[in-house]
Amino acid sequence: MNDTKVYILDGGSLVIDGFHVFWNRGPAGDVRFPCYSVLIDHPEGKFIFDTGFDKEHVEKVLPFEKPLQTDAQTLPGSLHAVGLTSGDITHVINSHYHFDHCGGNKHLHNATTICHKAELEGYHKPQPFEHLGYSDKSFDLATDIYTPRYETVEGDVEIAKGVHLMETPGHTKGHYSLLVELKGRRPMLFTADACYSKKNMDMNCISSFHLDPVASLESMSRLTSLAQEHEAEMFFSHDPDSYGSYLQAPGYYS
Amino acid sequence: MNDTKVYILDGGSLVIDGFHVFWNRGPAGDVRFPCYSVLIDHPEGKFIFDTGFDKEHVEKVLPFEKPLQTDAQTLPGSLHAVGLTSGDITHVINSHYHFDHCGGNKHLHNATTICHKAELEGYHKPQPFEHLGYSDKSFDLATDIYTPRYETVEGDVEIAKGVHLMETPGHTKGHYSLLVELKGRRPMLFTADACYSKKNMDMNCISSFHLDPVASLESMSRLTSLAQEHEAEMFFSHDPDSYGSYLQAPGYYS
Repeated sequence: MNDTKVYILDGGSLVIDGFHVFWNRGPAGDVRFPCYSVLIDHPEGKFIFDTGFDKEHVEKVLPFEKPLQTDAQTLPGSLHAVGLTSGDITHVINSHYHFDHCGGNKHLHNATTICHKAELEGYHKPQPFEHLGYSDKSFDLATDIYTPRYETVEGDVEIAKGVHLMETPGHTKGHYSLLVELKGRRPMLFTADACYSKKNMDMNCISSFHLDPVASLESMSRLTSLAQEHEAEMFFSHDPDSYGSYLQAPGYYS
Repeated sequence: MNDTKVYILDGGSLVIDGFHVFWNRGPAGDVRFPCYSVLIDHPEGKFIFDTGFDKEHVEKVLPFEKPLQTDAQTLPGSLHAVGLTSGDITHVINSHYHFDHCGGNKHLHNATTICHKAELEGYHKPQPFEHLGYSDKSFDLATDIYTPRYETVEGDVEIAKGVHLMETPGHTKGHYSLLVELKGRRPMLFTADACYSKKNMDMNCISSFHLDPVASLESMSRLTSLAQEHEAEMFFSHDPDSYGSYLQAPGYYS
């Protein structure tokens, strides 16, 4: 096993309704939840999995999500805190292209963008109910000057030794979760939006933002199986209850 | 064209959240909406399309939907108002088997139950998120003593001259809408839960209760096409704004 380090880069927070977090279950009311990026400092490169939201975009297009994000919580700001600049990142991978997972992509002007083929299709031809989710077009292949290289992938794929993208569709068409093996601890399984929170998992309840609810439930089940198989610890994407226990950068997992 | 008469039998009302009526759009807050049955008095038989909810069941299993239903709004009560008893009904058809569309089936002890094959599968093997929707088992094939005859159908089907079941899946696995041709007016297109209300149609927004949102949108689109093709008038299933303009039994359309 290599000397991989994993950093959790805090990206601020957003608000959605309880009925959005827990589909048809609720209860109703504002839920403020965290957004974060995962930096994988690996012998084969510096990888970012998800890049949070762009505050200006949210304020303009989805102001009802009440974004909170300090300068230190922007992607450049959080990279600075670990001694890096945006130009140091070699690869960016997005679990999916919802605005709160790709808002920082535009800063990564040296990175190769690794994307699921189906997710790119979903992003370019969204269903009517997906337009807001896919509203951040700032890094779009057609117009982007920041991330010139794309690598399109499908299926489960090991993008660097011990760094695995695992297909977990349903929330979106080509959604990936991330499994990272480390030398000094058990593997980390980043669910991304295949499961917002431990409570979603415990309730077997998906979020109200989804393309295919049946596939979403199958993906939650897959996450449980993966965690068991790899004896991995799950890290949820938007979990106000668990997030405080996650080690924040500049601390790291290794 | 024959002397078919169509009666709208008021069945009381329920409450759900605005985020349930308009998926991910809302706004939040209680929405009280009507439930009704459609009686088709036809030379080939007396048909009921949908049978509303059973108040006792809702009070027990889904009290948060705050059922309002007088004795006159029960299915036997509303049939009495048009000079019929439950035993006079020859056929019962349910758009789908959610509790608010089949609660009166158990009263129809002489009727043949016409059901979509896929809907029966969905009802017997619900997804985890469908359990509450499919919670009224009072007329279940396995236990029922009231509706002994089942006719399982698939695809679009004309169940009596000018009475057409049209497949509109997505809300549930085997959902039907109903088109009725009449001598004296343009056809009536009962959307059932393929579209709760005119506002859902105008917003191109499905309800939050669904098995497959993409199929649901396609079914809304199909309803629009059917209405155009047949020059039909749409009658929505749960539309507090339009319902007041629907002629109520003992009045009838013919």
